[in-house]
Amino acid sequence: MDHFTTLTHYRTRIDLVLEECLENLTFQSNPLFQAMHHGVLLGGKRMRPFLVYATGEMFGIDSKVLDVPAAAIEFIHAYSLIHDDLPAMDDDSLRRGQPTCHIAFGEDTAILAGDGLLTQAFSILSEKPMSGVNDSTRIAMITELARASGAVGMVLGQALDLQAEGKTVNVEDLETIHRHKTGALIRAAIRLGALTAGERSRPYLPLLDRYAEAIGLAFQVQDDILDVTGDSQITGKQQGMDLALGKSTYPGLLGLEPARHKAKELYQEAVDALAQLEKHGFNTQQLQALASYIVERNK
Amino acid sequence: MDHFTTLTHYRTRIDLVLEECLENLTFQSNPLFQAMHHGVLLGGKRMRPFLVYATGEMFGIDSKVLDVPAAAIEFIHAYSLIHDDLPAMDDDSLRRGQPTCHIAFGEDTAILAGDGLLTQAFSILSEKPMSGVNDSTRIAMITELARASGAVGMVLGQALDLQAEGKTVNVEDLETIHRHKTGALIRAAIRLGALTAGERSRPYLPLLDRYAEAIGLAFQVQDDILDVTGDSQITGKQQGMDLALGKSTYPGLLGLEPARHKAKELYQEAVDALAQLEKHGFNTQQLQALASYIVERNK
Repeated sequence: MDHFTTLTHYRTRIDLVLEECLENLTFQSNPLFQAMHHGVLLGGKRMRPFLVYATGEMFGIDSKVLDVPAAAIEFIHAYSLIHDDLPAMDDDSLRRGQPTCHIAFGEDTAILAGDGLLTQAFSILSEKPMSGVNDSTRIAMITELARASGAVGMVLGQALDLQAEGKTVNVEDLETIHRHKTGALIRAAIRLGALTAGERSRPYLPLLDRYAEAIGLAFQVQDDILDVTGDSQITGKQQGMDLALGKSTYPGLLGLEPARHKAKELYQEAVDALAQLEKHGFNTQQLQALASYIVERNK
Repeated sequence: MDHFTTLTHYRTRIDLVLEECLENLTFQSNPLFQAMHHGVLLGGKRMRPFLVYATGEMFGIDSKVLDVPAAAIEFIHAYSLIHDDLPAMDDDSLRRGQPTCHIAFGEDTAILAGDGLLTQAFSILSEKPMSGVNDSTRIAMITELARASGAVGMVLGQALDLQAEGKTVNVEDLETIHRHKTGALIRAAIRLGALTAGERSRPYLPLLDRYAEAIGLAFQVQDDILDVTGDSQITGKQQGMDLALGKSTYPGLLGLEPARHKAKELYQEAVDALAQLEKHGFNTQQLQALASYIVERNK
């Protein structure tokens, strides 16, 4: 399978899994569930689930097992987008070319839908069967997800981002923001995939972290570039929003060409980490393809 | 110790534990943490931690172990109040006689503080040491907390409550709302306390659930009564808010005296469940005292 086919394959798979994780909830007619569905099933690249599957499969783990962390992490991602789009936050009315959750369902229901998805991530991870994963590993996975998404991870990143609005920050501060805001969850996706293999994956976590940190930052640099150069018909986002919100960006701090150069350097860093893993006998083709996709994407 | 002394004892204890759970977070100078502190440490009755301690101690469990679920559940409660007070939700500016989180820190930081506390609850429950609690029990506790607080529990209750605003609902619908909105977390507090004793507490969960459901509903009936009759200097809440928001209440549906009668009936139901537990040799004095407090409180 080429990379596009693989991405589509996993995307179809995770969409079915996510749907199933929402189906068992009671009171389906309540707008809460329509809003949760809307937030989760609107589409999106499903990059985090892809990372869970690609990493887990490097260790020979069955997709059925990987469905569980893949769904949990995508629920966290979906909740963060719903809350991030709220009027008090980024005040976005458009996401992936569709009305954002609070536009479609009202601000109150959108807040609750985010809270519901966040909590559901931990429900899934604590109670869905994962064949071959012991209790101690399951707890390590819950700890990983909670740290990466909470007040020492993604939520902290969003708070640092808020503080930086309208201020001039340097590149180091900007990296600190992104390492928390988007990097922590990308790293968690890869770690959760690896952790399903239990203790035998532990020695490889540092290399996987190196890869994760490089693509996490590359993803953000490319996002910033697309905010300047992207076509909103393709990206599905309003153009120039970062500028309008007074947000610091890589093209803003470094200039457009140096930002592109930075993305390429990070890509190389990711590829180097994968080369090390190849030496240990792992097939890193899918993680390699994702790194290429991240710096080449136009949406 | 009399009940007041016991309540104060546990309250002092849990306040220290909550403080400690927030101290280890990085970037303490960020408003996110001030907002999280504000939400958690503003005070409050600490009823849910009390229930964790009182139930766990019935099974002979050490307070040090019970600190963990007690803190986790109070973090969930605190996050729910922060989000509930937001302008898009109840739009409350006063809570426990103090400015609400979004008044003090802004709406954006308040949303993030809620998200941070919610996630921190699962961090605590997955990684804080609990001597004598095995991995399988720890996972059962995480599952219990996630179910009780999420889209089949508290968050659903809040969504049902939103749907009911400005509509006439019957007593049955109102009970469904409260069983989810407040009842689920109260039941979880008691179950988490019991679960720390592992498998030997399982046979007693149905009786503990009966007690929990009765006091949970009694608490809400009394809350509705206090919204009509309470002194806002004592309750620390704005008077008549339920009416102003078009919310259905027990005094509104039943009349004030029948609502008082209902609270007493629920109290009796709780006491009956405890009498059964006494027959099995448990000391239920503290749970008994809390039931009395709930229907007699004036704030």
